Amino acid sequence: MIYVVGIGPGGYDGLTGEALEALKTCEVISGYKRYVELVKDFFPEKFFMSYPMRSEVARCEEALKVAEMGYSVALISSGDAGVYGMAGIMLEVAKGLADIKIIPGVTAANSAAAVLGAPLMNDYVTISLSDLMTDWEIIEKRLRTACNGDFVICLYNPASHHRPDSFKRACDIMLRYKPPETVCGYVRNINRPGQESKLMTLDEIRDCEEIDMLTTVIIGNSQTYALDGKMITRRGYEKAVRSEEVGGRNEEL
Amino acid sequence: MIYVVGIGPGGYDGLTGEALEALKTCEVISGYKRYVELVKDFFPEKFFMSYPMRSEVARCEEALKVAEMGYSVALISSGDAGVYGMAGIMLEVAKGLADIKIIPGVTAANSAAAVLGAPLMNDYVTISLSDLMTDWEIIEKRLRTACNGDFVICLYNPASHHRPDSFKRACDIMLRYKPPETVCGYVRNINRPGQESKLMTLDEIRDCEEIDMLTTVIIGNSQTYALDGKMITRRGYEKAVRSEEVGGRNEEL
Repeated sequence: MIYVVGIGPGGYDGLTGEALEALKTCEVISGYKRYVELVKDFFPEKFFMSYPMRSEVARCEEALKVAEMGYSVALISSGDAGVYGMAGIMLEVAKGLADIKIIPGVTAANSAAAVLGAPLMNDYVTISLSDLMTDWEIIEKRLRTACNGDFVICLYNPASHHRPDSFKRACDIMLRYKPPETVCGYVRNINRPGQESKLMTLDEIRDCEEIDMLTTVIIGNSQTYALDGKMITRRGYEKAVRSEEVGGRNEEL
Repeated sequence: MIYVVGIGPGGYDGLTGEALEALKTCEVISGYKRYVELVKDFFPEKFFMSYPMRSEVARCEEALKVAEMGYSVALISSGDAGVYGMAGIMLEVAKGLADIKIIPGVTAANSAAAVLGAPLMNDYVTISLSDLMTDWEIIEKRLRTACNGDFVICLYNPASHHRPDSFKRACDIMLRYKPPETVCGYVRNINRPGQESKLMTLDEIRDCEEIDMLTTVIIGNSQTYALDGKMITRRGYEKAVRSEEVGGRNEEL
């Protein structure tokens, strides 16, 4: 059995009961070394397979071998393994040859939003600025279309040592569509030691030095405003209060 | 103290440790009656405030009163309270006058994705088809822009008794941009009794009778395909495997 487990932003209390159960049940916990470190102390009796970067396919192939030997493995990703994580590649490598259970976790968009206030109260997009697996032209097009649709925009991997300017470039594109005073916020090291977060405007955040690969950025839409240090996207509840149908939404009011 | 708690898709094991702790700590649990029912049995000793539809503002105002009386309240939403949930309205009603902690949960997009496979492995949007708080013209524009950006599209509140045709109308818009064989999937009653899920193509799902207000729908992008009954969106790991930078992403590979 292979569990692909999203462990949430990082702390033990960010795990769901289902994720916790999988980590307790399995015999082997496998993943990128930084994430194995995050859970190691909580499950000292497990066998750990700790990997460096650039080993995603190997991780999945070895998890498959271990599962074929009859052990249950938990392959971990931070946040949600299904969002820019290990879930897809594990399914692709397994090709239906192993019993795989994907256990969702709280992804960075949602954990960052909770720190900043309630910026994702209306339709939103997540865009990764990493051009490793997506050409930059496509990323630029997605930024433009997300602005055209007035979506709240959550940016993953906003910057890295290898592309120090990608976040500025993304902001310059959004500044062509959104007013410079658009409310934005970032959270760094979400739920980890040294968490920092700040609200600012789009033209301010463009030049913010803190934005790096451990940061998640949320760019407001036309309905986003700041209230008492929190970032809120309006939905128009006065309408909802009159409504018969609110009970229908998946995300319950 | 007011906790705004996302309880996840519904089951006890979908709660994060942080959410569980807040529900254990608080004296009062407040929310829409269907969601109070979901948690009541787990915390029988709590005082419950159970509300009908169309009472969102009242719920927040009363939570504020209870907090001012010195009790701690957990205001619950299913999924993530910050996604089409109670977090924003609670902050708007409180206007900084109360101590509010927002505790994120696994939202329907991510829990549905885990059931269907790994459709959210690349950039995605969430769009609610409820036109109560967003004009239908804006919803249509967002559907068009999401198609233009080749985003994976997750639809919340795809249909209801009051708007039986909204899902068909949305599919007809997407069919102008996406091939009819685009891989899609739905999950109904995620993690609740009677969960059902199915993969189909965009032209098939358009006429699917099961799509209702308890259903979450995910429409693939150009990189989404079906493998062994699972829906997977490719990211191109062969590139990632060569990369120096993968370690940088928030959602760790």
